[in-house]
Amino acid sequence: MKAAVLYDTTSHNLNLLHWGHLEAPDPFFAIKICNRTIAFVSELEFGRFRSQSTFQEVHLWSEFRKGSSSNTPFWPSFFRFLQKQYAIDQFLLPNDFPASIYAEIVSVVPVAFDAAFFETQRAIKTVAEVGEIRKACTVAAKILQKTMEKIRNSTVKDGILYHEGKVLTSERLQGEMEVDALQQGCCAQGTIVAGGADAVDPHNPGSGVLREKQFIVIDFFPCLQSSHYYGDRTRTVFKGKPTEEQVRMYRAVQECQQLLIQRIRPGVYASELMSFALKFFEQQGFARKQTPNGCEGLIHSVGHGIGLDLHEYPSIGSQPIRLEPGMVVAIEPGLYFPSLGGVRMEDDVWITETGCEVLSPCEQGFEV
Amino acid sequence: MKAAVLYDTTSHNLNLLHWGHLEAPDPFFAIKICNRTIAFVSELEFGRFRSQSTFQEVHLWSEFRKGSSSNTPFWPSFFRFLQKQYAIDQFLLPNDFPASIYAEIVSVVPVAFDAAFFETQRAIKTVAEVGEIRKACTVAAKILQKTMEKIRNSTVKDGILYHEGKVLTSERLQGEMEVDALQQGCCAQGTIVAGGADAVDPHNPGSGVLREKQFIVIDFFPCLQSSHYYGDRTRTVFKGKPTEEQVRMYRAVQECQQLLIQRIRPGVYASELMSFALKFFEQQGFARKQTPNGCEGLIHSVGHGIGLDLHEYPSIGSQPIRLEPGMVVAIEPGLYFPSLGGVRMEDDVWITETGCEVLSPCEQGFEV
Repeated sequence: MKAAVLYDTTSHNLNLLHWGHLEAPDPFFAIKICNRTIAFVSELEFGRFRSQSTFQEVHLWSEFRKGSSSNTPFWPSFFRFLQKQYAIDQFLLPNDFPASIYAEIVSVVPVAFDAAFFETQRAIKTVAEVGEIRKACTVAAKILQKTMEKIRNSTVKDGILYHEGKVLTSERLQGEMEVDALQQGCCAQGTIVAGGADAVDPHNPGSGVLREKQFIVIDFFPCLQSSHYYGDRTRTVFKGKPTEEQVRMYRAVQECQQLLIQRIRPGVYASELMSFALKFFEQQGFARKQTPNGCEGLIHSVGHGIGLDLHEYPSIGSQPIRLEPGMVVAIEPGLYFPSLGGVRMEDDVWITETGCEVLSPCEQGFEV
Repeated sequence: MKAAVLYDTTSHNLNLLHWGHLEAPDPFFAIKICNRTIAFVSELEFGRFRSQSTFQEVHLWSEFRKGSSSNTPFWPSFFRFLQKQYAIDQFLLPNDFPASIYAEIVSVVPVAFDAAFFETQRAIKTVAEVGEIRKACTVAAKILQKTMEKIRNSTVKDGILYHEGKVLTSERLQGEMEVDALQQGCCAQGTIVAGGADAVDPHNPGSGVLREKQFIVIDFFPCLQSSHYYGDRTRTVFKGKPTEEQVRMYRAVQECQQLLIQRIRPGVYASELMSFALKFFEQQGFARKQTPNGCEGLIHSVGHGIGLDLHEYPSIGSQPIRLEPGMVVAIEPGLYFPSLGGVRMEDDVWITETGCEVLSPCEQGFEV
């Protein structure tokens, strides 16, 4: 029997949150043998873990601490106890397992690193998990809608957008969206409201005044405070009249996203989707290219798994990962050209037996 | 020469944030040799780290990755390069250094775990850091003040508090405080507004309706979004007329906190402060005692360091840690008795050459 081992906080290792569905601020110890999850926690957390977590066994950590004499180091004797108690042949560790514990046990019990096991743990979602992601997507949709309305209803003076008498800045919209999220039970941080040149860099959250005649990328990823599941959604809008080339670029991203979603079903490989998008954009005249200032076009992967973490397995990029029923992935093609601006469109989809379902569909945006 | 080594994200290892003062979502590698900090980052982060971080050297990680051939494992050759380049005799690792990297280098270069080095890294604050903590304390004070006003101005019906026509619950006040914090540039999570029995458990955030004739503990710890420094502050209020015993308990906590703050100066040991508080409460008739249902009285330490983390070195508990000028500590004595309720009073103080200064002093509370 193999046992996967974690010693961490739930915020740093979301597999622990996945095993127990209970947030804990301090590190604790847990193992998983087949589908059985077992936690070893402090006295402070014992009652709460027993009554509220989904661990099948919860043990009082101090019982084992007490048992080990001050002469024998704790970790080796604890791992030997586990080995015997649960008939464990090998302990599987994540790459970031605490080195000081590893150093004490490596010559005592059989251990191995198994990054893939831990990385793929949360890939297949239960219906309840999909329900949580859907809730977060709905909050994201509502608030994105409201933000697009503000830009739609804004007035323009000297090229700058104003709403309700005050200038519209990236920071203002980010702040208003994050406050709205909190009022709807979600924590949202790092919200992107990026106009013009800011939108050409997908990692730039955006700052300063928002202007007409440029793309504004709004990427919003609220996390439900109650369950810690994320939704991830991006819309791109444009105040004023775009050039023909800008219209073509927006339509290309929009069509690419729709075609990707149509192609998603069990058995398709992530890398096929990535290749499809690159080829599609090339055919549309928006090929990826290297310039002296960096890369232009589709410069990131076209998606990623989503759940307890914002970005998790599987990445929809160059790796040939087979898509399976039950995965939930964000699909987010985008195009970035300094001469035109940045456009990205993102929705989360649930992979079913035969295709996929967009979670909480919402308005597309663009010319407002 | 010894080199401290980190490979982590800034959110999980705040020493990385302390070295660079720049948040980074992905793990990166950094070393510190004497007071020289050196970062190795990805292409994506290179420009940002060069221009915005406080690292004295920033290197492009991929340069080293490229250099190592696919036949030789990367980590051993990278550590050997560092050893030679910076004349390093020993690499110091935190206990939670990634085990998979440790396993590759332990037989190649001299390494040692040094938990104390990493734990104490951020203990002495610069004047700029104190300024940030003071800002967070000021936000905490303003919002606590507003919350106390709401309870003061509430009406009572059947023992339950109402404000502006709606029932006052823990969740409502927590939500309102956290939204206020966000509007003032702070992220606040886990806010405690705990009345009655909830307040007797210092870890209970509180839930449900708030009532008259019981202590309400409000513990609020906003974190500045711009710099990630925390403020930590607790007030206890009481709507209606307390019993004599409750008044005595509140006054005991209040006096204890004032006496602790008077005693804080360089050279004093944390454990002396803890002993003082236990003895003081005993003399006041509120001795700590063990009951069949757990511990009553002062059941936690009387304080902790504060900075980039909410709780950091030094703990003001049973350990004999010497207080030094430049430390910033939260001082938070409390008493918890099921028969009376819970009372806690908390402020952050900056240890000076001769004593200490309360950061952004504010109203005390109690009978509202």
